[in-house]
This record gives sequence, structure tokens and C-alpha cells, in this order.
Amino acid sequence: MNILILSAGTRNKVVQYFKKTFNGIGTVVATDASKLGPAIYDADKYYIVPSITEPGYIELILDICKKEQINGVLSLIDPELSLLAANEELFRNIGVTVIGSSYDLCEMALDKMQMYEWLKNHGYNCARSWMDKNEFYRAINNGEVTYPVFVKPYRGSASISISKAEDKETVELLTSHENNLMVQEFLNGQEIGADVYIDMISGEVVSIFTKKKIKMRAGETDKAVSFKDDRLFELIERFVLEAGYRGQIDIDIFDIDGQYYISEVNPRFGGGYPHAYECGVDHMSLILNNLNGKSNKKSIGRYEEGIYMMKYNEVKIL
Amino acid sequence: MNILILSAGTRNKVVQYFKKTFNGIGTVVATDASKLGPAIYDADKYYIVPSITEPGYIELILDICKKEQINGVLSLIDPELSLLAANEELFRNIGVTVIGSSYDLCEMALDKMQMYEWLKNHGYNCARSWMDKNEFYRAINNGEVTYPVFVKPYRGSASISISKAEDKETVELLTSHENNLMVQEFLNGQEIGADVYIDMISGEVVSIFTKKKIKMRAGETDKAVSFKDDRLFELIERFVLEAGYRGQIDIDIFDIDGQYYISEVNPRFGGGYPHAYECGVDHMSLILNNLNGKSNKKSIGRYEEGIYMMKYNEVKIL
Repeated sequence: MNILILSAGTRNKVVQYFKKTFNGIGTVVATDASKLGPAIYDADKYYIVPSITEPGYIELILDICKKEQINGVLSLIDPELSLLAANEELFRNIGVTVIGSSYDLCEMALDKMQMYEWLKNHGYNCARSWMDKNEFYRAINNGEVTYPVFVKPYRGSASISISKAEDKETVELLTSHENNLMVQEFLNGQEIGADVYIDMISGEVVSIFTKKKIKMRAGETDKAVSFKDDRLFELIERFVLEAGYRGQIDIDIFDIDGQYYISEVNPRFGGGYPHAYECGVDHMSLILNNLNGKSNKKSIGRYEEGIYMMKYNEVKIL
Repeated sequence: MNILILSAGTRNKVVQYFKKTFNGIGTVVATDASKLGPAIYDADKYYIVPSITEPGYIELILDICKKEQINGVLSLIDPELSLLAANEELFRNIGVTVIGSSYDLCEMALDKMQMYEWLKNHGYNCARSWMDKNEFYRAINNGEVTYPVFVKPYRGSASISISKAEDKETVELLTSHENNLMVQEFLNGQEIGADVYIDMISGEVVSIFTKKKIKMRAGETDKAVSFKDDRLFELIERFVLEAGYRGQIDIDIFDIDGQYYISEVNPRFGGGYPHAYECGVDHMSLILNNLNGKSNKKSIGRYEEGIYMMKYNEVKIL
């Protein structure tokens, strides 16, 4: 049983955890477009590959799958998720399971306006969003929303070009410098992260880990503390099943005065997953079971509350 | 021989390296104002202490020094460097060496305008800076500087509130929202980091490690590659001796078309120091020698070029 981790980047912990799970069972192969992606060096074997946008990229990945007798493949970066989903059949034809959600859900995760429309139409609390500046100003004038607001690209990830605007002047300035920006309500509450596994055989939500994010200065350090709330678990399960996600996903949620707001979904392992794993919430084994044709039993919230996770920098030398 | 590392924060690698050096020789004690500072858990012993601004803070640190029979003390955060320097005599009176630079140099490191004036007056290339907006506009009109420029607090660290401004409109908007901002020329070149050790007994520059920083998206990952240039070593030595730094310092430099510009100095271990250590540039041993009353021999550039360092996130669980 061999697994291929695409675009491993700096997710060394994810690669290490797969190696632990697949130890004595099979090989963990990783790829990156750069020899300076440190995580590949933690895999059993690695390939430096072209950028995902290069012609022939998917054919090359399929070749690696054949050569390394890969059973399951997943990617750790957003733009590649849709690509894998779009080519799911090609992988299936050579016996490789794409561990991930459908093409439409991967695309929706990249498009904040589409995500917003979906959440709103299905009755979930979420941050109000506008592509049309004038509609936003009308909402301001009607008192439906107040400053500050976020101005950000409606497509984009990793907090690139997100600005907080305190007034109309700033919204005008930001939108005059860039296109494809949306205005989004600023959610002022406790940030929560959820790591969720949806069984790829049964389609059931089999594992949920939730943590409160602890804010630090200037994004320097990421710290969080595990917690449980059945009401949140129920909301997550309902949302995930209604949308139809599969495999590993990561959800950003806000708690505003006891109301949960869904903010974003990454249909992949997120940077905070190590917290879940270190608390015993091992999704690598759930994936291994699925690749072996076994569905997993539902086991939600089987971890301790009040466990703190603190990140720090480790280095790899080349 | 025991050492005390104050405000250890997320600098786990620095604590680990000291533990290696002091193994069998003495104890490494660390402090942090938060139990969520992961680095303290890598020390032999740790204390959770109040914020450095609390009354009685220094007395508490002096008490820890006495109790733990500390020989040398250093801090890993900027605002504490001046505090240690200001109280150097109190530490000296109980046999503790403050590993750091003078009060004036620690203060200059916090004040970008003061640093700029010093560099300009001593004939070093550096980014032109203005506290007075109108003087800056005059420089723009005279063609002495061009957009983009940085607008940032003249005191501050960790890239908090630094904005790039592409035009006058943006400079006006930024300065209308905040006080104490300076305008700084944008240096467009190769960023370089230098880790330097100035012997605390001889006052000589005994070790220099330089690396080129490799830019990644949105500050997500820090990667760098070691290199050597005698011309740069000479510049660093001249600058450091002229200013009078002591102990460990970290310098940010830009290479613009073969000309070196000095950008910033942190008179402490910086976040990039692990690269130097992993290349064999061990400043912990130089500190140990100094604490033992031995001066170190000059050994500049004793490392290999072309060694890459890649950071990734490790986690500590509490």
C-alpha cells in the first residue's frame, strides 16, 4: 500500500505522520516543484516535478503513480485539488484513489463569493460579502454592515493581499489599485479550526477535531487549544454532508456570542492538522483503511479538551 | 557554568543549541511571560515570569540568577535588550554577565530614524528615510527617491503595520490613520542576513556568517543559502567595530547591483541563526568561552557556501 503526497512544501509533519502509519506497510512518496520544499526529504522517496500549470504535468504524475505502484494520491496545495478531481478517472483507471473532494467543491473552496452564495442559500451563518462596491455602500448606509471590513481578492489563498478597511476612502483606494476584489464583513469573534475526515467509502463524517485559535502578535506564532461542543459537531456534520465533501477537510469557523459562522473550507490537510494528530486524532490511519477497502467507524470528539499546541520553527539543511 | 535565556518565546532551536553546548557543564534556564512559549520546555529548567514592563521585573530576574547561580544572561526579544543593558551593573554585582550590546546601541536598534541618521552620518549605504512627509514629497519632486516607498512606524519590530505605498494618495491615507510613521525608501535588491559574534572580552569581530534570503510567497516560508564575500565581511567588521556592538548580533543587508546597504541590526540571536549553527558556526561555544574568561580567536567565514536552509513548523503539545 503506497501513497503519493503532491506539492508537499513545508508540511513536514503530514509527511512524517504518513511515514509512521505506512511504516512496514508501504512507501510514502512526495513531490515538490522546488528542491527547497523541505517536506519531500521526510518521505521515503521524492520527485522534483514541474509546476502544476505546465503541460504534461498530470501525465507525469500518472507515470510516477505507475512506477511507484501508488494506491492513493493527495495534494497539499489548493490549486492542485481541482486538477486532481478533474482527472480522477485517469487515476482510477490505473488503480489510484484520489483522496479529496469533487471538482465543484474544490473550485468553490477557491472562490469566496461562490462559497458565500452557497452558505447563504443553505441557511448557514457566514460573513456577508459583496463583489459590487455600490451594493456594499448601500448595505453600509442601511446599517446592515459596519466598518471595518475586509477587502480581498475573491479568489486567492494564504492571506495574500487582504486589507482591513476602516472607511469608504480606504475601500475606494484599495479597489482602485486592484481588480477582482470583494468586500467582506469582518467577523469579530473567537476563531475556530476544525479538522474533519469524511469516509471515502461510507460518505459518513467519521472524525472531527476542533480547536480554538489563540491570537498572537503579527501572525508570528500559531497556538491553539482543543475543545469540544456537541452543537458545533452537529453543525459541522450537517454542513459537510449537505455540501458533499470527501476525505480530509479543514474548516475555519467563528464563534460570535455563541453563534457559529462558517468562514472557509480547505478540502485538504491544513497547516494546523498536527494539533489533531498529536491529540490522537489520526486521519492517516483512516485513509489507510479506506485505501484497503475498509470503511471507518464514526468516532467524533475522541480526544481531550484543553490540550495546547504551540508551533515553532524547525530547520532542514541541504 | 549556567546560562539564563529570557523571553525564549518560539526560539526552541536557540535553547536546544545552548543545551547541547552546556551539556555536562551547567544548566540552561529559560523564561517566558506565557506558558505558551514553546521554547521554555526545551530548557533544563524554566520560569513563567511577568511582562518585562511590570514593576519589579528586573528584581525577579536577579533573584532567579542568584537562585540558579547564573553566570550569563541574554534576552531573545528587542524591548528587553535595553532593559538588560540599563541594569548591567546590577547583574555584574552578582557575578552575572549580560550578553549583549550597550544601552545606546539597543535603543538605536529600536529606532529606525536614529539608525538611519547614524548610518548616513558615518557614510554607510542605507535606505533614505523621512519623518517629515513634506520633506519626503520634496525628495520625490527632486527625483531623489521614487515610489514605491514603505510607510512604517519609526519604532517597531516584526513587520507590524508596514505598508508599501505606490503613490502620494496612499502615503496621505496611511499617515492620516496613524501617528509616528516614517517614510522609507524601498530597497529593491537581494536581501542578506548576517550573524555576527563580537568577542565580549577582546571586542574583536570573531565570527561572521552570511546568507542570501530566498523570497517565498506571503512570507510563508523562510529559506536561505550560505555565501561568502570578503568585501561584505570587511564592511560588516568595519561597521560593527565603529558602532561598538558586543556579543551576538544579526544584521539585515541589501545587495543592490553589487553595492551593500545596511538595513537593520538586531543585537540578539535572530530567527535565522539556526542556519549558521547548522553550518558549523557555533556561537554558543563562543559565549561559553567568554563566560569562562577566555577570549575567542578570529574565525570569519569558516563554513561552506551553497548550504540551503529551509524552515518548517514543528509542534509542542502541552
